[in-house]
Amino acid sequence: MTVFVTQPAQHDHTAPYTERLGAALGDTVTIRVRTTLPVTRVQLKLVRGGEVETHPTREVAGTGESRWFEFALPLDAGSVRYAWQLELPDDHLNLTMSGLHHTRRAFRDWFQYLAGYAAPEWAWKSVFYQIFPDRFRNGDRASDVQTGEYSYNGRPVQHVPWMTPPDRAGDIHAHYGGDLAGISEKLPYLTDLGVNALWLTPIFTSPSNHRYDISDYREIDAHLGGQAAFDTLMTSSAEAGVRVVLDGVFNHVGNENAIFRAALEDESAPQRPMFTWRQYAGTATNTLPYHAFMDVPTLPKLDYASEAAQQEFLAGESSVVRHWLRQGIAGWRLDVAHMMGAGGSDEGNLELHRTLKRAAREENPDAYIFGERFFDPERAMQGDGEDGAMNYHGFGLPVMQWLSGQTYFFLPSKMDGTELSELLWDSYHALPPQVALNMFNLLDSHDVPRALYRLGGDKTRLRAALTLLMGYPGVPCVYYGTELGLSQTEQGAMPFCRAPMPWPDEGGAASDWDSELFADVQRLIRLRRDTAALQRGSMRFLLALPDAIGFVRELDGVQVAVLASRRSDGQAIAVPLPAGNWRDPLSGETLTGGTVSMVLDGGRVLVRED
Amino acid sequence: MTVFVTQPAQHDHTAPYTERLGAALGDTVTIRVRTTLPVTRVQLKLVRGGEVETHPTREVAGTGESRWFEFALPLDAGSVRYAWQLELPDDHLNLTMSGLHHTRRAFRDWFQYLAGYAAPEWAWKSVFYQIFPDRFRNGDRASDVQTGEYSYNGRPVQHVPWMTPPDRAGDIHAHYGGDLAGISEKLPYLTDLGVNALWLTPIFTSPSNHRYDISDYREIDAHLGGQAAFDTLMTSSAEAGVRVVLDGVFNHVGNENAIFRAALEDESAPQRPMFTWRQYAGTATNTLPYHAFMDVPTLPKLDYASEAAQQEFLAGESSVVRHWLRQGIAGWRLDVAHMMGAGGSDEGNLELHRTLKRAAREENPDAYIFGERFFDPERAMQGDGEDGAMNYHGFGLPVMQWLSGQTYFFLPSKMDGTELSELLWDSYHALPPQVALNMFNLLDSHDVPRALYRLGGDKTRLRAALTLLMGYPGVPCVYYGTELGLSQTEQGAMPFCRAPMPWPDEGGAASDWDSELFADVQRLIRLRRDTAALQRGSMRFLLALPDAIGFVRELDGVQVAVLASRRSDGQAIAVPLPAGNWRDPLSGETLTGGTVSMVLDGGRVLVRED
Repeated sequence: MTVFVTQPAQHDHTAPYTERLGAALGDTVTIRVRTTLPVTRVQLKLVRGGEVETHPTREVAGTGESRWFEFALPLDAGSVRYAWQLELPDDHLNLTMSGLHHTRRAFRDWFQYLAGYAAPEWAWKSVFYQIFPDRFRNGDRASDVQTGEYSYNGRPVQHVPWMTPPDRAGDIHAHYGGDLAGISEKLPYLTDLGVNALWLTPIFTSPSNHRYDISDYREIDAHLGGQAAFDTLMTSSAEAGVRVVLDGVFNHVGNENAIFRAALEDESAPQRPMFTWRQYAGTATNTLPYHAFMDVPTLPKLDYASEAAQQEFLAGESSVVRHWLRQGIAGWRLDVAHMMGAGGSDEGNLELHRTLKRAAREENPDAYIFGERFFDPERAMQGDGEDGAMNYHGFGLPVMQWLSGQTYFFLPSKMDGTELSELLWDSYHALPPQVALNMFNLLDSHDVPRALYRLGGDKTRLRAALTLLMGYPGVPCVYYGTELGLSQTEQGAMPFCRAPMPWPDEGGAASDWDSELFADVQRLIRLRRDTAALQRGSMRFLLALPDAIGFVRELDGVQVAVLASRRSDGQAIAVPLPAGNWRDPLSGETLTGGTVSMVLDGGRVLVRED
Repeated sequence: MTVFVTQPAQHDHTAPYTERLGAALGDTVTIRVRTTLPVTRVQLKLVRGGEVETHPTREVAGTGESRWFEFALPLDAGSVRYAWQLELPDDHLNLTMSGLHHTRRAFRDWFQYLAGYAAPEWAWKSVFYQIFPDRFRNGDRASDVQTGEYSYNGRPVQHVPWMTPPDRAGDIHAHYGGDLAGISEKLPYLTDLGVNALWLTPIFTSPSNHRYDISDYREIDAHLGGQAAFDTLMTSSAEAGVRVVLDGVFNHVGNENAIFRAALEDESAPQRPMFTWRQYAGTATNTLPYHAFMDVPTLPKLDYASEAAQQEFLAGESSVVRHWLRQGIAGWRLDVAHMMGAGGSDEGNLELHRTLKRAAREENPDAYIFGERFFDPERAMQGDGEDGAMNYHGFGLPVMQWLSGQTYFFLPSKMDGTELSELLWDSYHALPPQVALNMFNLLDSHDVPRALYRLGGDKTRLRAALTLLMGYPGVPCVYYGTELGLSQTEQGAMPFCRAPMPWPDEGGAASDWDSELFADVQRLIRLRRDTAALQRGSMRFLLALPDAIGFVRELDGVQVAVLASRRSDGQAIAVPLPAGNWRDPLSGETLTGGTVSMVLDGGRVLVRED
């Protein structure tokens, strides 16, 4: 079902195919289709009140060999589904997101317009950088956790020298001393790299080094510098043009949280209904008296059947969501967004996210809310809940699997580029276009093995991955250190993927810091930030071979080809480049459309210049 | 994504792959996978509370070259999604309804078990016959509508001699005199044909010949013989082993309905909120003071925001739904099921259908409830609402389009068998298995052109269509007269597709009655009713060529191949028949597995005999 650029009919979310995105309910939006087929009539099919209506379209002035037809799409529902019907002298075709077919296809394949939905478009123009605060930069040694300063879960915490590789023994009790002052200090480094938005994993008071076990959601952890360091970061990042998104852990709290302690210690406490309690079962697998994230005792799960929980964290006048938006953050990344719900389950999950987003948007109409949905997020991605999701399913995991020949559990995989392109298209085509552009793309994170490690240290393949990341629809995010070749010392994910940044003044060796790679990442980020077609253009595939894939992003007539190969042997690949003059903005090389033989090692971007 | 019988791993809803269907919430069901791949480990992936869990499976004794692995599937949600993960020495695959892939695929492709859902399994064993009562048989001339007996919508009704072809002039005012006594009289004909269930289009008091404009939902139309004829039909059909399903027109009523008249004539009437009223807009397209089906003034739309409407028609202690179930009908076909809703729209559609089905099941735990959903019904097909839907989208329309080379609007279409098989699989694989077996399959109906007419009178192709109908997953339905070659005289759908049955004693000519075709349909129906694998077996494709398709139904080790070609020229086609001994139950011919060259004109069924 992958749609290729050679398809003889085209419609997408960009002008002039779609007049504009984000129109209100009740508005009308002009949509157009372009085709080189010898059509005798073009009609529009529209789902309205459960029924399919067929409407005539109007032919408008064409360009070149193409003919254009337009229709005034009435937006009388939040999600409007439509398809184009192309009638030929001897055939009859339907154009949907799945391409040209003789049948009507399932509604899930039809084009979709979200009415009354305003995307946080700044995110489309942004390149994110993920920081795990304890490991990025120690800007204030006075705030460091000291060995034995406190105990967590019966074990004393430990201060670890900066360049020590993370190990299982240290686990979540090993604190390296990174803090918010360190992030402020390194803003020039980040803006030099070119990123303009940060996602910080949790920074609220918590006993572990990852801080997903929050004791106080309204207090910046003193070991990260407290409220003062946060205020400074807000000011300095705003001055640097860098937005900050925080990590919202709203599925569960830490067991040292005062709300939980009150609920645990007194069955009549008003906080009691904020958690799900169970009779002590006495079985080996289920001994906790309360529901918890993955049955981890330190992570009691919030029960959103409780109105008090909804008010405290999500929607109340001074909820946690609102509290930090009022202090200038640009949005929330929602931890295990798919798990949140009532009664120890995910019941009511989608409605909770609608509630959360309404509150967030009231505080900041541009707030960017995206969920950690490690698995297929499709059912939640209709714009009314989260704006987008971390795109493990539809980008990061399959791309890295193809490039590495392994799953993220290091199991061998023979997936080829053809199957990769099918999976990418399957995930992309199922989302409303604004939501597809909101998806948070990443190669790796604090939860999965580092990209370079998965690639066995092959930086040519890492460059290919980064090229795809910067070229793909959605919001790209670089995991701290990837830009300089940070890897890990042992197989696995946590804690090995959370090594500290090898700053030279912290003992990082010159060999830890690949300045050539850094410069390449810098150029790719710059290209992404300068190219509107990469930020919000449409996508169609150009190439889907076992060892190479490529797609074209297009906006307002500007075409950008994004190509990548998993070969590192310098072999050339025949690329069916659309007609026109093309230029490689990174190398300056120019090319003419046609079947062009080129080396795609490390990825390549070409821009059509007409 | 079409899954073929050659796939080296298999799991489906049948034993021994799935221990049983219909288990209750909280139960555990053993599921198994079979594979010929050199697996090193097989795991099960299970979606639980929004999270994917990975569980070990247990290898069990295999047969032949296959190895088998099993897992005890916990049913702790109404819909349980799962996939098998097959690990090989050098690869890693996921098995879902979309086949074997290296990626996890979208959840919509995963296997699905519906817990706590009991399908009306009698429907799987049934072959339905659709009767448009005014046109099937006149059993009681005393009840006939007389010309000028009354006027409807300002025009006098007309009595039309039986063998007159329907024409536009007669439209819905032309009454032929068919009635319930006629159906009772012809039960021997129907049981001789082999059908064991009837779907009657509406039989309640209504002014038109189609009776979708009901005046009184609790009264059998006197022109069909009234309550006495209905009682007789209930008794005689039960004796004949034939179930009767009625047509539930619950989206709108007729404008002569007393409830509507009361609401229209008095703004303070308690019936007023049962319809959606609007200010007289004075525009050309929208002049009615109430919402109506397709803006047809005689068909005011019910507003289910009104509790009174829900009680009266669907759920109340003596609702229409309950009233007729109490009198012995086997279920309801729901007219324009996708349109029902609140406020003149389809708002709340799915919840309404849940309400309707709960009420129906309380009256008869075996009630079969299926909706007219002319377009893609997927979102409604989760078992909690209707049991199934009329399968225009996923069977009837595409099959007839392929065989006729035309859409149902007679536009040319070059769809080939490869695309057909993809569409069929796409529709089939998206449904929970019980629901896929509940789908109401048909080639034609009172709403679309007759199959034989679409095929230009080509009875070889009609036999191919009927073979596919009897072989396909779902409940087959024959539109009255198709079995003897009834066609239509003019291009279009209504009223031409509603010609009367050419009974010899009503003036039907011998040439109107193709007894060879009748005998063939009889044999196909018999085969369907005798073959459990066709009633509830799994499906995989065997063949997908431009001019021929084929699939294998399988149950308890019994394989049945269903094959059809759209060629009528006697050319042989190479069929990759799985190993084993095969027998054609209709011709008696035996065949051995392998690539077998055979003529598939008119369709063919083969049963493996081991």
